[in-house]
Amino acid sequence: MTNAPDNSPSGIGPLELDSAATDFPARFAALLAMKREVSEEVDQAVARIVQAVVAGGDQAVIDFSRQFDRLDLTPETLRVSEGELDAAAGACDGETLAALKTARDRIEAYHSRQLPKDERFTDALGVTLGWRWTAVAAVGIYVPGGTASYPSSVLMNAVPAKVAGVARIVMAVPTPDGAVNPLVFAAARLAGVDEVYRIGGAQAVAALAYGTDTIRPVDKIVGPGNAYVAAAKRRVFGRVGIDMIAGPSEVLVLADGSANPEWIAADLLAQAEHDTAAQSILVTDDRALATAVKAAVAGQLKTLPRREIAGASWRNFGAIIHVASLAEAIPLVDRLAPEHLEIVAADADALARRIRNAGAIFLGGHTPEAIGDYVGGSNHVLPTARSARFSSGLGVLDFMKRTSILHCTPDSLAALGPAAIALGRAEGLDAHARSVSIRLNR
Amino acid sequence: MTNAPDNSPSGIGPLELDSAATDFPARFAALLAMKREVSEEVDQAVARIVQAVVAGGDQAVIDFSRQFDRLDLTPETLRVSEGELDAAAGACDGETLAALKTARDRIEAYHSRQLPKDERFTDALGVTLGWRWTAVAAVGIYVPGGTASYPSSVLMNAVPAKVAGVARIVMAVPTPDGAVNPLVFAAARLAGVDEVYRIGGAQAVAALAYGTDTIRPVDKIVGPGNAYVAAAKRRVFGRVGIDMIAGPSEVLVLADGSANPEWIAADLLAQAEHDTAAQSILVTDDRALATAVKAAVAGQLKTLPRREIAGASWRNFGAIIHVASLAEAIPLVDRLAPEHLEIVAADADALARRIRNAGAIFLGGHTPEAIGDYVGGSNHVLPTARSARFSSGLGVLDFMKRTSILHCTPDSLAALGPAAIALGRAEGLDAHARSVSIRLNR
Repeated sequence: MTNAPDNSPSGIGPLELDSAATDFPARFAALLAMKREVSEEVDQAVARIVQAVVAGGDQAVIDFSRQFDRLDLTPETLRVSEGELDAAAGACDGETLAALKTARDRIEAYHSRQLPKDERFTDALGVTLGWRWTAVAAVGIYVPGGTASYPSSVLMNAVPAKVAGVARIVMAVPTPDGAVNPLVFAAARLAGVDEVYRIGGAQAVAALAYGTDTIRPVDKIVGPGNAYVAAAKRRVFGRVGIDMIAGPSEVLVLADGSANPEWIAADLLAQAEHDTAAQSILVTDDRALATAVKAAVAGQLKTLPRREIAGASWRNFGAIIHVASLAEAIPLVDRLAPEHLEIVAADADALARRIRNAGAIFLGGHTPEAIGDYVGGSNHVLPTARSARFSSGLGVLDFMKRTSILHCTPDSLAALGPAAIALGRAEGLDAHARSVSIRLNR
Repeated sequence: MTNAPDNSPSGIGPLELDSAATDFPARFAALLAMKREVSEEVDQAVARIVQAVVAGGDQAVIDFSRQFDRLDLTPETLRVSEGELDAAAGACDGETLAALKTARDRIEAYHSRQLPKDERFTDALGVTLGWRWTAVAAVGIYVPGGTASYPSSVLMNAVPAKVAGVARIVMAVPTPDGAVNPLVFAAARLAGVDEVYRIGGAQAVAALAYGTDTIRPVDKIVGPGNAYVAAAKRRVFGRVGIDMIAGPSEVLVLADGSANPEWIAADLLAQAEHDTAAQSILVTDDRALATAVKAAVAGQLKTLPRREIAGASWRNFGAIIHVASLAEAIPLVDRLAPEHLEIVAADADALARRIRNAGAIFLGGHTPEAIGDYVGGSNHVLPTARSARFSSGLGVLDFMKRTSILHCTPDSLAALGPAAIALGRAEGLDAHARSVSIRLNR
């Protein structure tokens, strides 16, 4: 066997697995179980912050902003003014602004197709049934400050909410030391965000969930954030809805010998540059491709501004899995359930149809994941950490809810009633049975 | 003003509010904020149980079943045999079994209409976009033991999963002291549940999430349970998907003078008999109706087997809200966001169309909520505790997930690529930009 996997321990280079090796099941199971996140113990601190905001309102938010963001705010300056938003948008580079507009338009076009249909029908008994979809009334979008403050994320969260018909979209973005990201403000403008507050952390989540004198509460909170934000979202869940708690990002590239190794290496590094805990996996039936990709990764890393981050991710969490055929890889992909799946192979579409678990699939050599991150139109908020087994990327339905509708005529109640009475009695719920029988004069 | 509200303090009778009173905003806010659940501190106990099952597998589950259910199980008897299931179904009363079949068929017919459509389209640039829905591979359904062991809940959870195409449906139901509910087993048979285990509590949730030698893990866990089950579901969330954490049930009846007070009283009590923490609310523009309903509740309570429970619920959490017109009630209903909403009024359908927040709406005098609980066809697993503001009842989509799909041709990548490159660079993610530019030879 040429190019035998080197079985490097994690930390020295990407993990390399061979599906034909006798220890493959155990090593693949270890890959599945790999923990990439260090869970910070922030629950107690977050509980105190949330409680303080519930009790103290605006003043508590202002106090925490002074403490964490080194900002002196007042109830009047919590909200970013329309003038500031416009000025920020005006200060942005024209080409970037045009790109944001392209992204906005394409996200809007894609998500408009997700608007669900109401249903109403009358069955043979004369019972009218159905459901109606309505938008959540008010949504809060959390946007991190600092280096992870991405205008593309503003669009990906706000545009689907707008398409769903959310009447009030509120954004919270911290501005540590007063530093604002003009592109984030510009994206908020483009997406139709109604209110922007310069607050962050658990205090922002608490303010959005419980409201203060200045900030009216919302019904659902979405968007990425650090460990404090994630813990705060978990804590306010129930009082408001929340989206998924996202983990570090990941890509799996499924490629045959037709793939360009430099392009694949670029895609693996695009994932790896997000975070040292990001994960890039190559699955291939071509050993020469694997070798060439490894070399290309090493070469491209040298000139990458974020090479420290990308290199650490690739060394610690990168993986190459050798398979005899791409068809053999399908159950492996389903078990890994990657957030992003690129298929670069002759029969990409046929392979894609056989895969069940993936957040998003990028087909063919000319669809790098970065297109989907920015301007494809589909959403870049996708299920991480194998949760594509049971959950979906963000979409219009996350900003809507369904109310079921039922109507019986006297005749249809007479026809259906006895079965309901029988089940109510069988369950020991006589008042249930009586609420039907009293209408049937029995 | 005749029949003035008596403003009873909670615990002595139903709360009575008048929307024309000066203190109404404060009293309505207090009603909204009313806590009905005593939160038990079970997190630490649950953490220990989950950890023990992860470490000890079958034996840990067997040990906890001996401790909590007073049952001596072996790995061989954890699973309920096909013979036992058939025997249980055979022992059920014929009329009840027929009613369960009616319910199953109607739930299946209703939910079949919820199956989502895949989408694929090619836009003007030549980019092909879309999404594909697939079923979750394996689902666990938790069914409580004892008095809250409801066959109707088995159907409401399992039938939508079956309609979604879930290949493996697993049920966990504890049988304390060996007591089984034959109707629960019969419902499992009717719904097409694939495996049934006689285990409960946090140990059952842990076994479903992590798997044991005997029980293969699932991808999502749904179904009601006590505080231990709810805490265990929260704890395993992320490793598997979970449904909502349901609170005590509630109904809001919006009725005008045309309503039959005895029928309305029966509906309020059907809700109240579930749980002392259940809540029944009447909103009406007719004072005579309110008075008659109060009298009818008192009368019907006398002959109700579960009068202790229903009476406590009505006294402690029941409420009557007087409004000048039902139209005026619409914003109040939206703020309460009831799990169940009955509208018994001349213009029920028109009122329903103006309401945004409700789990399910029951229209007209001949549609008691109990029809929806059992045989209407819509789902009885609905959002409680005001969460209808942001979430929906259980449905087929809860057992499916959406994978987005993107495909660029060389030409469409050339057209879209520059915008992606601009945004990647603007966000400081140069590897993102490079993964596009490398394909454009720039």
